[in-house]
Amino acid sequence: MTRRALLIGIGPGGPDQLTVEAVHALNEVDVFLVADKEAEAGRAGTGDLVALREEICRRHITGDGYRVVTVPDPPRDRAPATDRVYGAEVRDWHAARARAYARAVVEHTRPGNTVGFLVWGDPSLYDSTIRVVEQIRTVGGVDLDYRVIPGVSSVQLLAARHRLVLNRIGGPVTVTTGRRLAADVASGADNLVVMLDGGLACADLDGDAWDLWWGANLGTEHEELVAGRLGEVLDAVRAARERARAARGWVMDTYLLRRAAAD
Amino acid sequence: MTRRALLIGIGPGGPDQLTVEAVHALNEVDVFLVADKEAEAGRAGTGDLVALREEICRRHITGDGYRVVTVPDPPRDRAPATDRVYGAEVRDWHAARARAYARAVVEHTRPGNTVGFLVWGDPSLYDSTIRVVEQIRTVGGVDLDYRVIPGVSSVQLLAARHRLVLNRIGGPVTVTTGRRLAADVASGADNLVVMLDGGLACADLDGDAWDLWWGANLGTEHEELVAGRLGEVLDAVRAARERARAARGWVMDTYLLRRAAAD
Ligand SMILES: C[S@@+](CC[C@H](N)C(=O)[O-])C[C@H]1O[C@@H](n2cnc3c(N)ncnc32)[C@H](O)[C@@H]1O
Ligand SMILES: C[S@@+](CC[C@H](N)C(=O)[O-])C[C@H]1O[C@@H](n2cnc3c(N)ncnc32)[C@H](O)[C@@H]1O
Repeated sequence: MTRRALLIGIGPGGPDQLTVEAVHALNEVDVFLVADKEAEAGRAGTGDLVALREEICRRHITGDGYRVVTVPDPPRDRAPATDRVYGAEVRDWHAARARAYARAVVEHTRPGNTVGFLVWGDPSLYDSTIRVVEQIRTVGGVDLDYRVIPGVSSVQLLAARHRLVLNRIGGPVTVTTGRRLAADVASGADNLVVMLDGGLACADLDGDAWDLWWGANLGTEHEELVAGRLGEVLDAVRAARERARAARGWVMDTYLLRRAAAD
Repeated sequence: MTRRALLIGIGPGGPDQLTVEAVHALNEVDVFLVADKEAEAGRAGTGDLVALREEICRRHITGDGYRVVTVPDPPRDRAPATDRVYGAEVRDWHAARARAYARAVVEHTRPGNTVGFLVWGDPSLYDSTIRVVEQIRTVGGVDLDYRVIPGVSSVQLLAARHRLVLNRIGGPVTVTTGRRLAADVASGADNLVVMLDGGLACADLDGDAWDLWWGANLGTEHEELVAGRLGEVLDAVRAARERARAARGWVMDTYLLRRAAAD
């Protein structure tokens, strides 16, 4: 009675940024379930992401023994008031999405089939797919075994493009979000990777005290990179962000912030 | 006159844990430079790593138009007294290694050639290859353009095996070393990935207050996984560590530590 799911990290942007193991996994999938983010009001550019997923399947799957089923995403409030609301609201949304996926799994696959989820970057960082698949089992009641195939995260692509080691020798690195940046800096973090930052939270830090390595739409043709002393490059970052958005219709950016050595 | 170098992340253990982009990069290399860690006294099991590198080349390179040149690693004191000594000593060692590599590059390649470095996991985490290649240019005076190809890190494979999201919803994750763990916990980090920990530094934390997701020799046949409340699973971790070491001759482990929810 058991169905199988593969959660496949596809990397952060280019069609060849997934592993050979991920390519093998793609070829085992009977039905890909894809969130129809288009159904969600107010999000532009996600058609691009759908196009990347399609290109990856076309390029790396031998034969055409697979189907793609689109699952409409439940609507979601993107500007909640507080962290507390944020957590609760995200959890409700996960449950609603899990029910929609459970229905799709039961309707479009048979026991013994392999269901595939393509996950942007790596499934372990700021991604809900693992939680959703857990809930397809717990909330949706579907008997599902699943396996996670790791992928290159946008963090690693950022570092590669800047030819950067994320840690100082023997030192730590804090991976965080724009929302949390000020709190993490306040508690002493001085070497941070920031993701999920729609509003350049780093602009509120002391521009003389930090070095920045920033990248947007990494892995796409319209990749943008900026690096330098925070206060000196912020304008260039804002301009590059707008270029990326204009070229692509959307922008995703991530950056390393490191407290500058006193001179 | 310029030579080109590719620093290629090969993933954390299995021969198919590298990206399709990395496979393309492998196929552009004329000469691979490999550190002969065997030449370094007191490190067991590195023959295994050499074997993995060879398997990756055999499996993923078309044709045999490449050579592998072994560069003896300068000796290195692995148990320095203080963090300060640690930093200085590592830097000296990097410079010595850079000179050895610069000699090998000049001797074994021609201008226009592509030199390849295979990097365990991802080049951006606790790896010195980027710094060494920088120093081949600055210390060794070799005219070298280089590019970094990201790879899956052992952190991502750990998360995949435990089907784990590294961050709590919207929360941060601190990536650190065994040596730094106590300091990072003291400054408030409560969700940490620990690498480079030869001595299970987590054993010094309150066993009731933390959950642990641990893995060793991930991606190899002798992978070990343990998860649970820290105090309850430490013995199992120690036993698994010894099994991995016995099976393989070496052990590399990494783990996520998360402060447990109060019950
Ligand atoms: C919902 S998270 C998913 C992260 C993803 N799981 C990963 O491993 O990269 C989305 C955030 O990842 C970062 N991101 C993802 N893709 C990116 C890209 N191609 N260029 C720059 N940042 C990217 C941005 O910070 C974005 O806000
Ligand atoms: C010098 S660091 C290199 C890390 C590497 N660049 C990466 O991205 O995984 C070596 C540390 O990485 C971790 N590590 C590397 N490979 C591993 C594996 N296969 N299983 C578990 N831990 C691993 C261990 O913590 C080890 O001490």
